[in-house]
Amino acid sequence: MSILVVGSVAFDSVKTPFGERARILGGSATYFSVAASFFTDVRVVAVVGDDFGPADEAVFLEREIDTSDLERVAGRSFHWSGEYGYDLNIAHTRDTQLNVFAEFKPKLSPAAKETPYLFLGNIQPQLQVEVREQVAARLVAADTMNYWINNTPDDLRHLLGCVDLLIINDAEAREIAKEANLVRAMRRIIAMGPKRIVVKRGEYGAAMFTEHSYFATPAYPLEDVFDPTGAGDSFAGGFMGYLAATNATDEAAFRRGIIYGSVMASFNVEEFGCERLRRLTYDEINARFRELRAFSHFEEAEMPPF
Amino acid sequence: MSILVVGSVAFDSVKTPFGERARILGGSATYFSVAASFFTDVRVVAVVGDDFGPADEAVFLEREIDTSDLERVAGRSFHWSGEYGYDLNIAHTRDTQLNVFAEFKPKLSPAAKETPYLFLGNIQPQLQVEVREQVAARLVAADTMNYWINNTPDDLRHLLGCVDLLIINDAEAREIAKEANLVRAMRRIIAMGPKRIVVKRGEYGAAMFTEHSYFATPAYPLEDVFDPTGAGDSFAGGFMGYLAATNATDEAAFRRGIIYGSVMASFNVEEFGCERLRRLTYDEINARFRELRAFSHFEEAEMPPF
Repeated sequence: MSILVVGSVAFDSVKTPFGERARILGGSATYFSVAASFFTDVRVVAVVGDDFGPADEAVFLEREIDTSDLERVAGRSFHWSGEYGYDLNIAHTRDTQLNVFAEFKPKLSPAAKETPYLFLGNIQPQLQVEVREQVAARLVAADTMNYWINNTPDDLRHLLGCVDLLIINDAEAREIAKEANLVRAMRRIIAMGPKRIVVKRGEYGAAMFTEHSYFATPAYPLEDVFDPTGAGDSFAGGFMGYLAATNATDEAAFRRGIIYGSVMASFNVEEFGCERLRRLTYDEINARFRELRAFSHFEEAEMPPF
Repeated sequence: MSILVVGSVAFDSVKTPFGERARILGGSATYFSVAASFFTDVRVVAVVGDDFGPADEAVFLEREIDTSDLERVAGRSFHWSGEYGYDLNIAHTRDTQLNVFAEFKPKLSPAAKETPYLFLGNIQPQLQVEVREQVAARLVAADTMNYWINNTPDDLRHLLGCVDLLIINDAEAREIAKEANLVRAMRRIIAMGPKRIVVKRGEYGAAMFTEHSYFATPAYPLEDVFDPTGAGDSFAGGFMGYLAATNATDEAAFRRGIIYGSVMASFNVEEFGCERLRRLTYDEINARFRELRAFSHFEEAEMPPF
């Protein structure tokens, strides 16, 4: 099964304690697509300006990502500039230029509208809803961020009412639910629409909740986190990519998806932009999947031991 | 095998968003002892004042904890007063009165000196070293806190050189190692002495590192965290209690110990003080152990899926 992703294709200027890069290819749809492309066919819906050149498009084409719904307009592409300190969990935005993204009205081709898996990357909730309503998908997942939670709460509530799955972080979940306790927050958000919530926890891994199930995995332990940009989207790409590839809907498949998401995110943060994912191999992916399994395995026991 | 614990037996005045209690029995040695007593015989080394009465001692005696090394002196017991906001991970100390604890010089009975498992609760590193040097234990674990890391760094380094296992939290590990990346921080601390480090992560669970192994578990998901006081010490009690009970030294046993520690901490925070642990049953402990296993289990997979 194939996946449709709508989100941003952007240029990022990123500074971390370990280096700096200017105007490298990034954006939620880019990271998601590249990660998901290791698992299944991916079609990307986004808008770029005339600064998006053949070298940028090559990142998509070499991964056989379908760019026929990638709209090109006159002007400059979305540009994000940000910085990370030693606490790599926190991105400090220096500048955001929406550019061509400001007028983005996603236009979907007939093929796009029939894609069975849909990921609504972090853009205005209103646009996410517009895309969602055009696609007859069997599984719809969405990401969002605190900006939309605070500034467009009604649109966000509308979005929550029409997606199957929400992929967010701890703080966002607490903000949406207005509830400090995460377990209670999950129950409140599930009552708003999504039957399943995936919570990204950065270096602490990821958790997944439904009304009746809970799963959590640690993150892959890394000695060298170089650039956290795109971690959440490459996580979502690995997760959704695995689900689409297997077309499975059981809890066990969702769990394996969480592990593939964690694996893809762990590689992504090892280098700037998509550099690491572009030369990733299946052997590397499988090795980290097995390692994560070993890191969390423990045997049964029973007390008292006497 | 039995366990010796040295630490504080204190009275705590605690305020959380859910209620308030004045002068309830607490202290690192108390929480540790009560939790560990579900697994093996426990002997407690600490000092109390003449405000420590029969009702307080009953908490130890009902769990068959050996209090013959619990020193009683004239004066008032250690008193801690603190408050938690909605972020229950952070304790705000309002007042600390060392009282009889200020002059504490641990005196060990001959039986105490031959206890095979030793837990050095969070007190001055110099006292921890003094106790450690008197006990011919086969496994010695220590806790510490940022206060000692910053104010008595030399004593702490001495302590690290004579323990097998360190039980701390993320921020403390980073401070000791002066290294933001946790994996690198672990390697640095292991080079200072302890062969194994257990990292307590509050609502994110716990991790365990040796030079060649890594293990992590999520925390038991709780809807009602009432009072986080003692979570770390009841974790340590469950962990060490299981190790002492089984007298095992393999990685698999240490991992099961981490799970029992997580289980004991999860119960402890459900009510004020030791209230929840005092009426805990083995059926409840075993049920949460099994649940934690189910929460983190996932099956093998292999990519590509085609």
